[in-house]
Amino acid sequence: MNKLNRISSFLTDNNVDAAFITNPDNVFYVSGFRSNPHERILGVVLFKDADPLMICPKMEVPDAKAAGWAFDIVGHQDTDNPWELLKEAINKKGIPISQLAIEKSHLTVERLDALQELFPQASFTRLDDLLNMMRVIKDENELSILRQAAEYADYAIQVGVSEIAEGKTELEILTAIELALKKKGISHMSFDTMVLIGPKTASPHGKPGDRKIQKGDFILFDLGVVYKGYCSDITRTVSFGEPTDEQKDVYETVRRAEQDAVDAVKPGVRAMDLDKIARDVITQAGYGEFFTHRLGHGLGISVHEYPSVTGNNELLLTEGMVFTIEPGIYDPKITGVRIEDDVVVTKDGVEILTKFTKELVIIPTNN
Amino acid sequence: MNKLNRISSFLTDNNVDAAFITNPDNVFYVSGFRSNPHERILGVVLFKDADPLMICPKMEVPDAKAAGWAFDIVGHQDTDNPWELLKEAINKKGIPISQLAIEKSHLTVERLDALQELFPQASFTRLDDLLNMMRVIKDENELSILRQAAEYADYAIQVGVSEIAEGKTELEILTAIELALKKKGISHMSFDTMVLIGPKTASPHGKPGDRKIQKGDFILFDLGVVYKGYCSDITRTVSFGEPTDEQKDVYETVRRAEQDAVDAVKPGVRAMDLDKIARDVITQAGYGEFFTHRLGHGLGISVHEYPSVTGNNELLLTEGMVFTIEPGIYDPKITGVRIEDDVVVTKDGVEILTKFTKELVIIPTNN
Repeated sequence: MNKLNRISSFLTDNNVDAAFITNPDNVFYVSGFRSNPHERILGVVLFKDADPLMICPKMEVPDAKAAGWAFDIVGHQDTDNPWELLKEAINKKGIPISQLAIEKSHLTVERLDALQELFPQASFTRLDDLLNMMRVIKDENELSILRQAAEYADYAIQVGVSEIAEGKTELEILTAIELALKKKGISHMSFDTMVLIGPKTASPHGKPGDRKIQKGDFILFDLGVVYKGYCSDITRTVSFGEPTDEQKDVYETVRRAEQDAVDAVKPGVRAMDLDKIARDVITQAGYGEFFTHRLGHGLGISVHEYPSVTGNNELLLTEGMVFTIEPGIYDPKITGVRIEDDVVVTKDGVEILTKFTKELVIIPTNN
Repeated sequence: MNKLNRISSFLTDNNVDAAFITNPDNVFYVSGFRSNPHERILGVVLFKDADPLMICPKMEVPDAKAAGWAFDIVGHQDTDNPWELLKEAINKKGIPISQLAIEKSHLTVERLDALQELFPQASFTRLDDLLNMMRVIKDENELSILRQAAEYADYAIQVGVSEIAEGKTELEILTAIELALKKKGISHMSFDTMVLIGPKTASPHGKPGDRKIQKGDFILFDLGVVYKGYCSDITRTVSFGEPTDEQKDVYETVRRAEQDAVDAVKPGVRAMDLDKIARDVITQAGYGEFFTHRLGHGLGISVHEYPSVTGNNELLLTEGMVFTIEPGIYDPKITGVRIEDDVVVTKDGVEILTKFTKELVIIPTNN
């Protein structure tokens, strides 16, 4: 059953008249049309038994068609009231709306108010969980794209590591990475590329700047690419010059935590179990207070998507799920280290998409 | 009166107990703390007579303090229920919430539901218009940042034009521009840089790719930088080789439309008047159907912000407003041309922030 039919079945089963999808990632998922509409309205309306329709800025109508959307499109201009146009198009189908499914985690209160005004009798139900459950299981086509996205992420780390030299700044290395990717046709990163040097590795959300590489620094890379609409996300931490025993201990603790969690991935395990496995390794080594975030997050069209791999998520892993595993220790007195892989739950275990080595890479300082 | 006090006054005047700000651009505006929280909760709560508080991911608490936030911060971890922590912090202040102001154009339905559950007695009122009216008037500090942001945009166009050569692709030129900016310390563009060649100039939302420059092509640049949290946005269109008479006519029509609209900017003029002035020039020249979007948009912390410069916006221009003026003609049989400036409404006229020439630049083809 294709995606549109699956949503229509959901509507039929739950006696909901229509679904209105406006999250650009979900619009892409159901239509193949990727667009950032800014404040303008972009959406897909699906029905129980009628063809769906799309609403988008008029100047993007040709792009939506070119992306493969074969149904009606309502194009709106900046002086139009897009809500009125939407209502007309729905009325033309002769479908009364008394129950409408919306993405409650995306639709704004203002837009809900506008829909309520269009359909004063309507009540609203939640579509988010269906879309999450559809998107969380990746099909073979999606997996092959994600594999390729991860391969570009590996390549980016390789470029970053090869750029390391005394005195270079975070931004210089970051620029070299993104330039190399652009040369390979990768025009978008899945989030702001992170290159952090020395003490800045201990800030999990630090911003790259003018910090220069010095002997003895750890260097943390966290980055990902967008490839055919899908995201990768990798973290590696390397050492410039011989690390201290304390730094090595932090690194090896994170590495064991990460590997143990990866090794535990298989259908039937709970997301929270993975978090616990990694957290226990880090806590037992005495660094528990410095692992300040969840273990990972779902990965696909969005760089952070369902499911959250956190200590209280009882979700059972299922074949086809893709998520990150990324424990870290951020000890301001020693160093920060994070190691992150993208993994797929397979029929009886795990496939690791990101392949750059997790052994501690030590870059020689030449003196 | 500072920003926080102004919002508190609004609460007092309207008998609203508190305001909850979660749009990251507005959080930055009122607090100085810039963060992309992804799906996590980041917000500022303001009261009538009590100190405000911030809620943010625990690992970002030091960053918020470093950005100058001097009041309480509620840090939440991934296993916490941030809503419960928020309620506790508000309860500790002993302030009952029966009216809460929210950003209806940003807050999701899911978050509204969560707030309603926290404060079952509360009703919700709109904060958006106050924030829009505050942000729309830029102070001297903001204007000096915006001037600098525009200067970097001019520089980017200069780099782009200097890179033009037969056979180069859109992505090659785009990469050269962003690399040059990174070398100047500009790490973020305000939106995806657009370099479009030849027929692709006629697609107002086209995507840069592998199109190679050929003799006779027009090349359209649309780009902007983020500088100290503020955006610039410029468009210029140039010719590679001698243009045809038709191409020249399109260009000169857009140029007149743009200049006439810019020249009309002063306090008391309506936003819609500017749109009409430019549109009339283009319509009278016979290209009306090919100018498919509004004249411009507000510019500041967000690259698209209040006000919209559109054909039905009766807003009166006021000193300190900053917006774009960007008419275009997208004639698939001739070429696309867009020219865009960032302008400030001054006491008695206009200041143009973007200064790159608007005369048609013709790049010699060397044959």
